[in-house]
Amino acid sequence: MTTPRLSWVESANTGLTDFPLQNLPYGVFSTAERSARAGVAIGDRIVDLQELAAAGLLPEAMQEVFAASTLNPFISLGQPAWRDVRQRLTEWLAMDAGAHAAAALRERALVPMAQARLHLPLEVTGYTDFYSSRHHAENCGRLFRSPENALPPNWLELPIGYNGRASTIVASGTPVRRPSGQRRQPGEPRPVFGPSVKLDFELEMAFVVGKPSAMSEPIPIAQAPDHLFGMVLLNDWSARDFQQWESAPLGPFNSKSFCTSISPWIVTMDALAPFRCAHPTQQPVPLDYLRQDGDGAYAIELEASIRPKGGKARFPVTRTNFRTMYWTMAQQLAHHTVSGCNVRVGDLMASGTLSGATPGSLGCLLEITKNGKEALTLPDGSTRYFLLDGDEVSIGGWCQGNGYRVGFGEVSGEVREGNDSAE
Amino acid sequence: MTTPRLSWVESANTGLTDFPLQNLPYGVFSTAERSARAGVAIGDRIVDLQELAAAGLLPEAMQEVFAASTLNPFISLGQPAWRDVRQRLTEWLAMDAGAHAAAALRERALVPMAQARLHLPLEVTGYTDFYSSRHHAENCGRLFRSPENALPPNWLELPIGYNGRASTIVASGTPVRRPSGQRRQPGEPRPVFGPSVKLDFELEMAFVVGKPSAMSEPIPIAQAPDHLFGMVLLNDWSARDFQQWESAPLGPFNSKSFCTSISPWIVTMDALAPFRCAHPTQQPVPLDYLRQDGDGAYAIELEASIRPKGGKARFPVTRTNFRTMYWTMAQQLAHHTVSGCNVRVGDLMASGTLSGATPGSLGCLLEITKNGKEALTLPDGSTRYFLLDGDEVSIGGWCQGNGYRVGFGEVSGEVREGNDSAE
Repeated sequence: MTTPRLSWVESANTGLTDFPLQNLPYGVFSTAERSARAGVAIGDRIVDLQELAAAGLLPEAMQEVFAASTLNPFISLGQPAWRDVRQRLTEWLAMDAGAHAAAALRERALVPMAQARLHLPLEVTGYTDFYSSRHHAENCGRLFRSPENALPPNWLELPIGYNGRASTIVASGTPVRRPSGQRRQPGEPRPVFGPSVKLDFELEMAFVVGKPSAMSEPIPIAQAPDHLFGMVLLNDWSARDFQQWESAPLGPFNSKSFCTSISPWIVTMDALAPFRCAHPTQQPVPLDYLRQDGDGAYAIELEASIRPKGGKARFPVTRTNFRTMYWTMAQQLAHHTVSGCNVRVGDLMASGTLSGATPGSLGCLLEITKNGKEALTLPDGSTRYFLLDGDEVSIGGWCQGNGYRVGFGEVSGEVREGNDSAE
Repeated sequence: MTTPRLSWVESANTGLTDFPLQNLPYGVFSTAERSARAGVAIGDRIVDLQELAAAGLLPEAMQEVFAASTLNPFISLGQPAWRDVRQRLTEWLAMDAGAHAAAALRERALVPMAQARLHLPLEVTGYTDFYSSRHHAENCGRLFRSPENALPPNWLELPIGYNGRASTIVASGTPVRRPSGQRRQPGEPRPVFGPSVKLDFELEMAFVVGKPSAMSEPIPIAQAPDHLFGMVLLNDWSARDFQQWESAPLGPFNSKSFCTSISPWIVTMDALAPFRCAHPTQQPVPLDYLRQDGDGAYAIELEASIRPKGGKARFPVTRTNFRTMYWTMAQQLAHHTVSGCNVRVGDLMASGTLSGATPGSLGCLLEITKNGKEALTLPDGSTRYFLLDGDEVSIGGWCQGNGYRVGFGEVSGEVREGNDSAE
């Protein structure tokens, strides 16, 4: 086993950190002294990119884009700029090439992550949520359709997706208020209004579009990977009681558009490249515009946990892998644009709930408890059918390398009671 | 009958123009000499608001917001600013109060509309499409569900809506490319890929959000009208063959997200106020958060026409009225935010297809031809089941006052063959 390249930032070399020299994910942070700006995570530190540009270690013209409070201006510079910055950062941070790392600049440019606030890293220009995990779709189909027709007839032919509400994407750590809305009990003539009694999380990942496309110019699948900047973890909070009542015939609306949380660090496709792997065999073979040669998946371990109110322990409730996703990101993007739809820098496109084949790998409580029919017992003896006020849900994800891991940090959020139940 | 107040812009006084002194809608225009900027329509002229601000007839601080290439900065100033500008413009343009209208300023500030290009007036920050016409929903239900269960069970309880794709909203006049996608013929085992063979228009209107709301702070229905800036005409181009195949279970996606056209002038709620009228009786009485006291509708005449390829004549194919919409705009906004969803300045929220009760008042070809089963014969003898390449669809709308009308101009677009059928 070869030793991975190390950094003079010692916390980056533990083998357990999500942010070794091989990762270098982008985010937006602020501190008491520094306004919100672009940064890169390394170990337990954040590199203030503006400072590096001011010092001439990154192109000086980029100082302004790194001073912005979202990454959109940087991402808009395109892949050559992304790669140039990645290479320069690697050289500056590497232990074996740290000649430029003068102590004064290290001091100015490195911020302890513990002292920083992490912000929503993007202006999310559009939000699409796919439904690309076969196990998830089959499990939902068994609950709401029938075991014989678990998959909708179109499921194996196209990556089903819907437009979500971009304005309600929030940064990890933002509490989620239990939403109010309409639900109808079976057999009741009319719905009732009140706080959701079936609040759920959904373990998802999402990619960030880094290269725009024009209307009426579909992105061919072979070029789709060039349009991806990076990936984040995503929790698509869902009110199952509202969803079941409202969704026919135009899809989920209020049940999904009250809060969607993403992790603060965008891990680049360049950092993920070593973890590319084969995607599941697709049968029937997709129509031509969806046929992808080569490996379309990434091996990313995923775990969701619940920390009950007032507790300290996080109890893992599922463990799965992004590589099980049936439709690939390139297929999703090719399908999204094949009608002529354009995409923009800052568009966020989510996977849909990622469930594996086993009971321990289901990506939401709807599946784990079979829509509230079977209790999930946590190690503290408490049970869950759906989320309780005070529950904090965290999702983590990482790619395991040889002696290092490229991680996503986490997306977390605590459930708070709804406004209308407050005094 | 009292004479409406007249303008020294003579073309505003014809009684037939959409843009009399009583209207004063906002748009964004450019000419050979003027970059894209805010303007107000009056008769066959556009008022360059930047020039009026520079001359001190509008608050000078507004010069910058009027120089922007979208109306979002102006709208963000809020209702007091909207009303101040409306009043000052009325005073400047009125025949009986035109003392300030020095000839040199008239020359500088008035641009012939015929020489201007009209742009998309907004940065559309979010796009929602409702489904609020009862006749439309019933007609669709009869085609795709059954005559006995024409309305979905939730339809009378909530204004059904879905999130659309904001990036594909375009200005009137933009050609619409026939989209390609998947459709499946009945009885066929697999779908085929190709240009849509069921391209349709949808006659809709939309409101523009002018006052934002915070997440987790629903807009009470009594306050919802304060959040509306104005309204536009909207054509929600739809590929019916794709829609039928893709929509279960998460709603329409590619069938709706290739192009959505809006009219260039935003007619303000203040201009529409005289045309407010009762909305349809709602039975069952909606749940409390949706109960609206007073008049919730507006009397707006609507007409859609088709101009076949190469022809000059426009053939009206439907005539209806916005006042027939079952769920009001205030109800739509109250429902949209009741879960905690926030809204932003520049959000566009559409009515859904507006159909009346009679055969001549149906808002799309799907209904007119019963999904391609009954031909629509145009006055030139040609027939339509769905739109042909070269068809130009135009939608107009106006409120009829005493001796004047407050109009929307029109939204139009010509169907072009898809890219993939071109050489």
